[in-house]
Amino acid sequence: MILIVKPGSTKKDLDKLLNELHGQNFKTHLSIGDNTTIVGLVGDTSLLDVNEMRANPMIMDVKRVSEPYKRANRKFNNTDTVIDINGIKIGGGYFGVIAGPCSVESEKQILLIAENIKKSGANILRGGAFKPRTSPYAFQGLEGKGIEYLEKAKGKYNLPIITEIMDISDIDCFTNVDIIQVGARNMQNFRLLKKLGKQNKPILLKRGLSSTIEELLMSAEYIMSEGNNNVILCERGIRTFETSTRNTLDISAVPVLKKLTHLPVVVDPSHSGGRAYLVPALSKAAIAAGADGIMIEVHNNPPKALSDGAQSLTMEEFDTLMVTLRKYVELEKKVISINK
Amino acid sequence: MILIVKPGSTKKDLDKLLNELHGQNFKTHLSIGDNTTIVGLVGDTSLLDVNEMRANPMIMDVKRVSEPYKRANRKFNNTDTVIDINGIKIGGGYFGVIAGPCSVESEKQILLIAENIKKSGANILRGGAFKPRTSPYAFQGLEGKGIEYLEKAKGKYNLPIITEIMDISDIDCFTNVDIIQVGARNMQNFRLLKKLGKQNKPILLKRGLSSTIEELLMSAEYIMSEGNNNVILCERGIRTFETSTRNTLDISAVPVLKKLTHLPVVVDPSHSGGRAYLVPALSKAAIAAGADGIMIEVHNNPPKALSDGAQSLTMEEFDTLMVTLRKYVELEKKVISINK
Amino acid sequence: MILIVKPGSTKKDLDKLLNELHGQNFKTHLSIGDNTTIVGLVGDTSLLDVNEMRANPMIMDVKRVSEPYKRANRKFNNTDTVIDINGIKIGGGYFGVIAGPCSVESEKQILLIAENIKKSGANILRGGAFKPRTSPYAFQGLEGKGIEYLEKAKGKYNLPIITEIMDISDIDCFTNVDIIQVGARNMQNFRLLKKLGKQNKPILLKRGLSSTIEELLMSAEYIMSEGNNNVILCERGIRTFETSTRNTLDISAVPVLKKLTHLPVVVDPSHSGGRAYLVPALSKAAIAAGADGIMIEVHNNPPKALSDGAQSLTMEEFDTLMVTLRKYVELEKKVISINK
Amino acid sequence: MILIVKPGSTKKDLDKLLNELHGQNFKTHLSIGDNTTIVGLVGDTSLLDVNEMRANPMIMDVKRVSEPYKRANRKFNNTDTVIDINGIKIGGGYFGVIAGPCSVESEKQILLIAENIKKSGANILRGGAFKPRTSPYAFQGLEGKGIEYLEKAKGKYNLPIITEIMDISDIDCFTNVDIIQVGARNMQNFRLLKKLGKQNKPILLKRGLSSTIEELLMSAEYIMSEGNNNVILCERGIRTFETSTRNTLDISAVPVLKKLTHLPVVVDPSHSGGRAYLVPALSKAAIAAGADGIMIEVHNNPPKALSDGAQSLTMEEFDTLMVTLRKYVELEKKVISINK
Repeated sequence: MILIVKPGSTKKDLDKLLNELHGQNFKTHLSIGDNTTIVGLVGDTSLLDVNEMRANPMIMDVKRVSEPYKRANRKFNNTDTVIDINGIKIGGGYFGVIAGPCSVESEKQILLIAENIKKSGANILRGGAFKPRTSPYAFQGLEGKGIEYLEKAKGKYNLPIITEIMDISDIDCFTNVDIIQVGARNMQNFRLLKKLGKQNKPILLKRGLSSTIEELLMSAEYIMSEGNNNVILCERGIRTFETSTRNTLDISAVPVLKKLTHLPVVVDPSHSGGRAYLVPALSKAAIAAGADGIMIEVHNNPPKALSDGAQSLTMEEFDTLMVTLRKYVELEKKVISINK
Repeated sequence: MILIVKPGSTKKDLDKLLNELHGQNFKTHLSIGDNTTIVGLVGDTSLLDVNEMRANPMIMDVKRVSEPYKRANRKFNNTDTVIDINGIKIGGGYFGVIAGPCSVESEKQILLIAENIKKSGANILRGGAFKPRTSPYAFQGLEGKGIEYLEKAKGKYNLPIITEIMDISDIDCFTNVDIIQVGARNMQNFRLLKKLGKQNKPILLKRGLSSTIEELLMSAEYIMSEGNNNVILCERGIRTFETSTRNTLDISAVPVLKKLTHLPVVVDPSHSGGRAYLVPALSKAAIAAGADGIMIEVHNNPPKALSDGAQSLTMEEFDTLMVTLRKYVELEKKVISINK
Repeated sequence: MILIVKPGSTKKDLDKLLNELHGQNFKTHLSIGDNTTIVGLVGDTSLLDVNEMRANPMIMDVKRVSEPYKRANRKFNNTDTVIDINGIKIGGGYFGVIAGPCSVESEKQILLIAENIKKSGANILRGGAFKPRTSPYAFQGLEGKGIEYLEKAKGKYNLPIITEIMDISDIDCFTNVDIIQVGARNMQNFRLLKKLGKQNKPILLKRGLSSTIEELLMSAEYIMSEGNNNVILCERGIRTFETSTRNTLDISAVPVLKKLTHLPVVVDPSHSGGRAYLVPALSKAAIAAGADGIMIEVHNNPPKALSDGAQSLTMEEFDTLMVTLRKYVELEKKVISINK
Repeated sequence: MILIVKPGSTKKDLDKLLNELHGQNFKTHLSIGDNTTIVGLVGDTSLLDVNEMRANPMIMDVKRVSEPYKRANRKFNNTDTVIDINGIKIGGGYFGVIAGPCSVESEKQILLIAENIKKSGANILRGGAFKPRTSPYAFQGLEGKGIEYLEKAKGKYNLPIITEIMDISDIDCFTNVDIIQVGARNMQNFRLLKKLGKQNKPILLKRGLSSTIEELLMSAEYIMSEGNNNVILCERGIRTFETSTRNTLDISAVPVLKKLTHLPVVVDPSHSGGRAYLVPALSKAAIAAGADGIMIEVHNNPPKALSDGAQSLTMEEFDTLMVTLRKYVELEKKVISINK
């Protein structure tokens, strides 16, 4: 960490600052220029808060040099994390294909979709039961009932299931869920993250609409700091000024994250674009950029979907798309593991 | 709501679409141009989801004409909501001055600050007890103990208190809290909002870092739809590309919100700018733009603050600032109500 | 175009508005709801300005239904434009590989790079001669001399050349330049665009840092409205809150543009990411998303580059990358045309 | 400037880097930590380009400590610049009120508006003659004729005039113009800036839609580096995700700029909000935040304006607003200078 000293500070002030820092067990290196004096701080600065340091009247500005996350940091653990979900693997050369409807709507619906996406080559079934909706007047999901239907599909088609949690008080419903999803709007619901850190099942953590890559990693760190290292990161589009897409898929986040962390990175092309016609191009781009998996919304009848129909593929469209995607996965020398 | 029909749709398709809409009790008006056919939908469209409508293969695009919120909408209730907090009023000509430290750090600290801000003219005391921090390694607040200290200050100085809730499981700690704050990161924690809608005390709802004004109003609607109409909105800066401030204070949100809703609007200049030197200019601007209150971080010793010291005023700076701010409040013909 | 009438307008006001619109040769369709009255406008609305319409005191809001661009619009011309640059083609199944240094630095340098990128498989040579730099104290390019060096490379290696224009007064230097580039900062320099519309050579138009896709197409329309239809669009990253990349590559812009326009779309992964390590992932993603070409910065000695070294590949890195990229281009069934 | 050395670099590499830097006349200070080695660079780093430094394979990251602008920097010149326009002053306690139509439409129109705004208390007349329009099909301004009409108004009402330049080839039209405006879209048209740096009249430089405050100052530096120090900065709203306003007025830019530079700062509430109803609140906020002037669009008949009618005040609205604004200017202890 670099501290830039306020111009006009006296020698005495500076000594006082240095003494304080030494008292906190930091070593310091001083660099005195004509206009600017800089203090380099050596030691474990991950516990320091940049904003607190700035409050010191001696300090004009603070610049962080090393990342504030540790467990998620590739620097301290250079082996790709491979998440194993009952035999289905994601990360380290294994590519996950998560597919299913935005919302579970009925037992019949989810069984039909599960059967079809499995045939097409998906290896994990998604479906929303607890739905975060902008409007209190919109369909809020089948809740516990929805998860029951997912479990039936899981049993019948041997597909691990993933669904979103909105409140830790619902955790009992998630006993047979294989991956718990944290949605974009809850990425900084720190109390929820901490509690999920005490679960021993994989967490798929979606990036918030306006969260930086570093903040996403800090949220992963919340989960990991409680002991759960099975975190999958998910890029799902950020909010920008552009309105021709629902969100702006930050495709660069994939190679940036692969460099900074050993955790697997999945892309959600459905929420990023918000329109079904964009899903093929964005899915291919995600694979080509190095993603460890994709998460695609597939519906038996998109125009009648109870949520997010505009961005859902039909089961036929998904089947056709998978033919192409497999070629891209192969070109990246990755494997889609399948449970028979 | 306007539906733009996909080019090349047949007369038969169009009739089918119109029949569906009539079946949902909407009246329709058809406008057929050379290149574009448009359906105007008449009826209560607040329950319709734009994204669902777009999923219809007949529909190329959808444009909302009326707002999706009702209870918060000034169109349906043109009287300014005045929130009464034990005699202290906010809204409808009453200006609230909320001040206090980012975090409650000790009983002594909060009593000292409470005494001083009251003398300077603040009428509500703030202080964080449950703290949302980006890093799991940062100070997380005194929690229940912090609220106890706030209550002592409340009793001793007759100042209503406001503090942030992060999880509904902590609600028992909030029995003597006068205003419950929902932080920016929880603005779309819909489960929390619903539960707060069942409380009968005022909720201060902060705008999310990347939430639109409409989304802020939809989140207010979540609280109001459960019966709690005592919602205070708070603009606290949005996330943009500019890095010379912590966030970008969206000052225009004040007049926009005053036009769209009858709810009071408060501005937080401390979190917006992130630097103490910006607080005076932004506070004055907030009043001049029509805000119904401001919320300012004040600390007895900012460089030693356990959180957000960089943006805190000293008690002396706050006292000086209040002399100026009173003139601006007066110019706006507003009143700062005081409990003796 | 949809006009939403201000609530409370009288029948007389409405008739007056309709008469005005009929006087401008528009047909109107009226849709009267309980809370909202809407006027659908039928006719050529591409000449209308949304902001001007909003100024009418009768009108509360205006929503555009059809695109304001015509010549660039795929609706009116569904055949992919193929740009032919002395035999090298871009668009309609032809993939362009534009490579070279950020700045031309010497004759020797540009000849060396040209020879190498040609061997590696690039088919167009780039190199900046007039450089837009944020600081007036930074290297501003070799100007006319730089273009002379490019011409030598063009002659020796039979490679078409592209370089950026900053001011129309320099146009004489561009006589032997094959593609004139308009940089992001000049995307809305409308006077320059108009003048380039009178040139009869291809223009590569870069998207502005904060320009919407629609604004990019309107700028293309400026060039085309003067008679020059040879416009290549270039996505090069937009400005967002994320700071771990120089800009945020808007990969979705590729499929969105391919849907809206018949013009070819090229991606610049070098400026998007701003770091050399990101170029391979972003280049592959661009091809997979459907781009008609890429534009990559390659330098003989990046650490010594006079500009943008951080994002330049070495000639060896580019050579290795091209082996991979060819497989992606092939998978997309596109062809890289080569001049012997 | 701080250089963060790539981990794993050898002592020999480091010595080489230090030697290079010493060769460029920088002094260096080394700070070696457990995980990170840092080089502090002492000397005139304003000529260094952060992106170039990053290209060095030894360097992992670069952080700037001192600002890259000099002439505009308050650190090197702490006296507020006062711009004198034929007796009308802006800056250093003098407040400028610039008013007039978006576009000059006729001699009669501009004379009428000039007469009225002068009566209401404006001290500078604005009016667009060369208009930057997103669409090539929109009204492009009266050009030279428009400036002639402005000159007549200037003569008749003794009001200095300001109008926008789009291309240096039009400079002859600006002989009698008092302040030359550079629009947001041309803020980084560096060739134009350099040429305006050779003019000896004040330049009003508008901030680009997605330009940082530092980039605005660097563009001012372009003008000043050629010898013209009479630069007025103008905040006119930035582009964000929020769509309820045309742009987002970055009100914090006012106090930030006042801290960083001695140049006067003016706010344009009309373009920021894009709606007339927002102008009063934003104008008051601008004054309260410390602006040295405001620039307001006023039109004799906004619904019939040839451009930007939606954001124009009527002459009556402007007159009423000025009564209020004068009180705010007074509270800020500033003076509006008037030519009789």
